[in-house]
Formats: sequence, structure tokens, C-alpha cells
Amino acid sequence: MMASVPKINVDRLWSDIISLGEITDPALPYTRRSFSPLFDEGRAMLSRRMAEAGLTVRVDAAGNLIGRRDGRLENAPAIAMGSHSDTVPAGGRFDGIAGVVAAIEVACAIAESGHQTSHPIEVIDFLAEEPSTFGLSCIGSRGMASQLDGAMLAMIDGEGRVLADALRAVGGEPDSIATAGRNDLAAFLELHIEQGPVLENKNIPIGVVSSIVGIRRIEIEFEGMPAHAGTAPMNLRQDAGYAGALTNVAVRQHAEAFSAREDRYFVATTGIMLLHPGGSNVVPGRCKLVIDVRSSDAALIEEFTEILDRESLFSADLAKVRRISMKLLSDGVPAHCDQRIRSCIRDSAVSLGCPALDIASGAGHDAAFIATICPVGMIFIPCLRGMSHTPDEYSTADELGTGAAVMLEAVLRLDAMLIP
Amino acid sequence: MMASVPKINVDRLWSDIISLGEITDPALPYTRRSFSPLFDEGRAMLSRRMAEAGLTVRVDAAGNLIGRRDGRLENAPAIAMGSHSDTVPAGGRFDGIAGVVAAIEVACAIAESGHQTSHPIEVIDFLAEEPSTFGLSCIGSRGMASQLDGAMLAMIDGEGRVLADALRAVGGEPDSIATAGRNDLAAFLELHIEQGPVLENKNIPIGVVSSIVGIRRIEIEFEGMPAHAGTAPMNLRQDAGYAGALTNVAVRQHAEAFSAREDRYFVATTGIMLLHPGGSNVVPGRCKLVIDVRSSDAALIEEFTEILDRESLFSADLAKVRRISMKLLSDGVPAHCDQRIRSCIRDSAVSLGCPALDIASGAGHDAAFIATICPVGMIFIPCLRGMSHTPDEYSTADELGTGAAVMLEAVLRLDAMLIP
Repeated sequence: MMASVPKINVDRLWSDIISLGEITDPALPYTRRSFSPLFDEGRAMLSRRMAEAGLTVRVDAAGNLIGRRDGRLENAPAIAMGSHSDTVPAGGRFDGIAGVVAAIEVACAIAESGHQTSHPIEVIDFLAEEPSTFGLSCIGSRGMASQLDGAMLAMIDGEGRVLADALRAVGGEPDSIATAGRNDLAAFLELHIEQGPVLENKNIPIGVVSSIVGIRRIEIEFEGMPAHAGTAPMNLRQDAGYAGALTNVAVRQHAEAFSAREDRYFVATTGIMLLHPGGSNVVPGRCKLVIDVRSSDAALIEEFTEILDRESLFSADLAKVRRISMKLLSDGVPAHCDQRIRSCIRDSAVSLGCPALDIASGAGHDAAFIATICPVGMIFIPCLRGMSHTPDEYSTADELGTGAAVMLEAVLRLDAMLIP
Repeated sequence: MMASVPKINVDRLWSDIISLGEITDPALPYTRRSFSPLFDEGRAMLSRRMAEAGLTVRVDAAGNLIGRRDGRLENAPAIAMGSHSDTVPAGGRFDGIAGVVAAIEVACAIAESGHQTSHPIEVIDFLAEEPSTFGLSCIGSRGMASQLDGAMLAMIDGEGRVLADALRAVGGEPDSIATAGRNDLAAFLELHIEQGPVLENKNIPIGVVSSIVGIRRIEIEFEGMPAHAGTAPMNLRQDAGYAGALTNVAVRQHAEAFSAREDRYFVATTGIMLLHPGGSNVVPGRCKLVIDVRSSDAALIEEFTEILDRESLFSADLAKVRRISMKLLSDGVPAHCDQRIRSCIRDSAVSLGCPALDIASGAGHDAAFIATICPVGMIFIPCLRGMSHTPDEYSTADELGTGAAVMLEAVLRLDAMLIP
């Protein structure tokens, strides 16, 4: 049989998005958390769709759902695509899901066309990219990157479940977790909604991700002296809330300066600021802030941390309080997308007449873990007002179809390029 | 019988403080809230002590416990002293209590000496100066000033009790509340711990209160746009928490400038600042602040409110958010102590060899309501590190004795001065 040119079926793609969205806690759309019966139901549908796309389906030891179709060359490493199908509570229908469904559609389009790839093609639905009840993100991609350790497998959630048991229940094998580790991937591609406003604002359909930010979370605590709001003279106050407010302002102003360096991505956020005791008539005696610092450049995160150290001590001095702690809550390094895959995605977009923009990912993704075991690339598509993790999260069928078409073209080009 | 010079018995005074302190919720010292069985128990003790001081005891329609001894002159207005015996939860043994116990000791010293005053002497334990479960402060002194209205009497607490019923249970008569109103007081004196650090820091035993601050509480709310802390570029953020932090800093810096005007008392506090949703990885979409503004001068409160209006709008502009509300939660005008009574207290202190300092009261007091029906004066005594509303609240027996001695001297002088 003569092979035709593989072509994305946008209606089928959109129908998969809508069908998966219907598998939700009806009281809290869209909710399909990992390790819940609804998640299993979603996977049953994905498994069926993978099989229809001509893929052989299995679950690996880390609980990842993997569909594979062998290539023409024996023992060639695989070209993998995927993302995650789980959601946060009251999340959306696109975050993660778009990447899984688009990967299935790409595989389906290739199978339908009769085209035979040189490399094996894999479609992966990573387990529990969102924190789930265990509070740990990217469980499946950590496992595939051999970074899911015994301490993590022993984690216990609010319902008393042990992660190892929950993993077994979705078909994983915690006792053979090492078998989930891969060294046979040629490339990994992840399509994802941008979760930010840049592509929409610039009216550009394709973002070529340059890197996935490193994320450092820092907690700072000030201790002053709680006092009567009426009787403590201004010049004798030890107002911990004032120190917190000064630090909040400093975080913002330095972050603006850092983000103005156009070559590197940088953001910093004071999302948590708690005043204690928090009564209208009490000068706050304690104040705790959590600052989230992200950059594509680990050196910038380090430099900002040093400034934050100085500024928070200076804030404490001004407010006559003590900075009793400044500690790391978590710290992840930036992951870089492969230059050759980035070029391939950009060329694919151009060949389809799609404007494309280099863009850093400010959010974490499974691709950041997979980047430690093979070259990766990410394709961003625009989403409504940059919203994510909300039922209002939205991309149009056209935006999704364009992203999938670019991914299909990139897979075909990589398949040709990567032939040994 | 020849009268001797009335003299304060410091041991007796201190013993009353300690005994009353023992009437507390044992699990939460020191707790003796109005409308609780412990409060009734405390009043039973106070009632007995008043009787021992030669006073005739009654409870008025507003639930105030009043001990009275007639004077030599018929129909002369009374010289009253007092404060409140209730506490906040986990409060102290001195706030309010010191003033009630000292007033009883003054009456006792006069009775023991055989001295006959010209004016009637009254000792008042005002009902529920602290907010109690009804959340309303100064219930008794409001009643005595004819400012306890039907809406207040209809208030319902968390246990479903109606204030009128709770008032009846302590011997008040809500249906005849008007009879609590007084127009027969010549003067009112309230001794109280300073609840601030000024007297202790300056090592001065007596504060002559010039005025009791007016208190205005202002709530400001900012609304921006919640956004992903990783993907929202700094220059597109609408961070409501940043607007709140800028306003917090502005409140502090203007308050410092206002408080430097030495002739008038001024403080302002941001005790409440809430960020929403309050996650480390979310740019805050909403922020609410409550600012407590106090001054001896109503014009300063007004001027500060105008500055706060401008500064909060400016903060909203800088953060690209909207200030969706700025509203008064409560507003009380300053009360001024009577010049003649202030002089009398100062002269009394000097005659006893005690340094005295003019001082504004940054806290509210029963005397502020009583100032609307008769001339008032307040005597402050030092307290440990300015602390109040905590079990650590403390004044020494000497400090208390000195305060009571000055109040005794002032009562005797007023009694002589006020004779028509």
C-alpha cells in the first residue's frame, strides 16, 4: 500500500479532550486526581484510544501508561511524546491532557497514513504530574528518570495510604521501580498549554520552549514583639509585619529588575505572607513569608537569593525585629531543551506557515525530569488569558490542532534526522 | 472620734489583686469573662470587700456593681472611682482590676480613718469593658452614659444568648435601662495600668492622662488577578499582595511622621493583612488590610485618613490592581480628661513626692464614656514591659500602692475643691 501524508484530525482530537473532560467529579469540575477511581476511568479511555492508534499498551513500574509502535529499524531508540492526564482539584481540561491527547492523535495520524517510522514511537501518560494526595509532583517522570526513591515510595497521604500501595493499584511495581528507568529514548516531545499570557498577547500559535525554569522556594520569618496597637509608641515598636511588607516590596522591585534582562527568564513571587497574631488592635509580633523564585538560569536564582538575604536583614533592622529564619523549602535546577529538537520544532512550524516564538517555561513539567535521560523539546500552545488550574482554562480546537500538526511534523523530521 | 489621716494599706490592696486573680479558669489563666460563673464569683468577692469598706452595694440597670457611701452634704453629686473586673481570655490580673481594687482600698482607707467626705463616694465595677462573647466593649459604662441602645441589647452571642437576658442574669434591668443613666456625678477617677512602656522606660510612677484616643478602624481591599507564579511575567502582573505591602509600608512611614508631632498623640497599625489565595505558587489576586488609627486629636485622624486614601490608590496604581473598597469598620472620637482634675492629680502626686508625667491613653477605657456625663481623670501606673492582655501583665505592689495613694489624695482634694 502506498503511504499518504499523515494528517491531524482536529475533530477527533477535540472529541478526545471533551470526552476526557466529562470524566470528572461532577461536583467539582474538572477533577480527575491520580490514584482516584476517576483517574482509572480516564486511563481506561486513553488505553482504548492508544490501542485504536495501533499502539501496544502497557503500564511501567512507575505507573506510567505507555503506548508503543515499533519502527522499521531494529533496536533503534524510541521517539516519545506525552504529558499527564491527571488534574488538580477543580482544575481544567487542557493542562497535561492536551499533550497526551495530541500525542495519541499524532500516533493515530501516522498509523492511518500507512507511514512506517524508522524509530519506535511511544505515547506516554505520566503518572501524577500534579501533587495528588501525596503532595509529590511528577511521580511517573521521576520514576522514568530513576529519581523516584524509597523515601518517596514510603510517603503516606492524608487517607493513610502508602505511595507504594497506591502505585501498585494503578499497575505499577514499586518493588521493581528500577525497571521504569529508561536509556532507550532518542527524543521526548511534550505539547502543553502555555499557562501564561505571552502567546495570546502576541497572537503567535506556537511557543518553542527554550528551558524549564528551576524553582526555589524560600521561607523567611521575622520575630518582633506583639504590642497593643494603641499604647505602643511608633518609635518603640518591633513590628514584624512591617519587616514582612518591606521584604515583599523588595522582592517585587528586584524581580522587576532581574526580569528586564531579556536573555534569561526570571520571576519571583511573595504568595504567602502571614501576620501573627493578626488582630486589628495588635502590632504583629511575627511574620512569615514564602517567596517563589524561578529562572532559566541557576546563577540568577543564586544571585537573587543573596539579595533577598541582604534585603530581609535590612528590613528587620528598619523594623527593629529579628529575622529568625531564612530557609529553603525546595530547590530545583533549570532544565534545558535540546537545541537540535528546538530547531526541528521551529522548522516544522515554519514549514506549516505557523509563526513560532522562543519562550521559557515558568512552570515545571514532566519534560524537566525526562531531560536528564534524553534530549527533550516542548511545544507551547496559547491558552485563554494565561489561565490554568481552573475550570476556565481553555484553548481552542484550532490552537490545539495547530500544535498537534507541528508535533507530528517534528516527529517525522526527527525520525528522519535521527536515523543513525 | 478624732479622724486620722486616711492611709492606703498596700498589703490589703495586693492581697485583693492576688485573690481576684485566683478566680480564673484554671486551664486558661487569667480568664474571668463577663457573663460567666467565674465573673459572678469575682463580683461576689468584690461586693463583700465593698461592704467591708463601709459601702452600700447595688447593681444598676446596666449591670454595674456600685458601692456608695453618703457624704456630709445632702444632695451633693458623688465623686466616683472605678474600672472593670472582667478579663479577656488568657488575660492578666491588673488591666481594669487594679482600678476597681484601688478604688475599694481608697474607700476603705477613708472609712477606717473616720474621715467624713462632703460628697458621696462611689466605687464602680463597670460591666463588660472587654468585648465578652457579645463582641461589644464597655457595656456598663455605655449604659451609665445612656449610650446602650436597643440594638445593642438585642445582640446575640455565639452561644445564642441575647445580651438583654445575659444582663438580667448579672442583676441588670434591660427593660429599665434608662435608669442606669447618671447626671449626679461630680467627678470620675479611673486608675489603670498604662498598657504601654513609657512610664517604665522613664522610671516615672504616675501618669496623668490628658486624653483617651479616638480609634478609627479602616478596611482596605485590593483586587488584582490571581496568576501562576511561574508563568505570569513580572510586567503583566496584577499582584494585590504587592499593593497591600506598599500600603502597609506607607501606613508605617506616615504614622512615624505624625507621631513625631510632640503635642498630640498618634499611632497607626496594620494588624491584619490577608493575601488570597495564599499559595506559594500563586500571585495574590486579592489582599485585605485593616488599619487601626488612634489619636488624641480627631483632626489628625482625619488628615491621616486622607493620606491613606491617596497612598492606597497610589499603591493600587503601582501594582496595576484596583482598590475595590476603603471603608470604616468603626470610629470613636477622642475623650479629654478634665483640666481641673488633671491638675488635682498632678498636685496630689507632687505632694506625695511622686514624679508625674502627662500622657495620652492609646487604649480605650470606661472613662471615655463617663467623660460624656461628668469631668473625668485617669491615673496610669507603670506595668512590666508595657504588656497587657497576657498572663505576663504585671505591676508591683509598690507601683499599685503609689497609684492608690495618689488617687486617695486626689479624692480628698476634689472633695474639698468641689464643695459648692
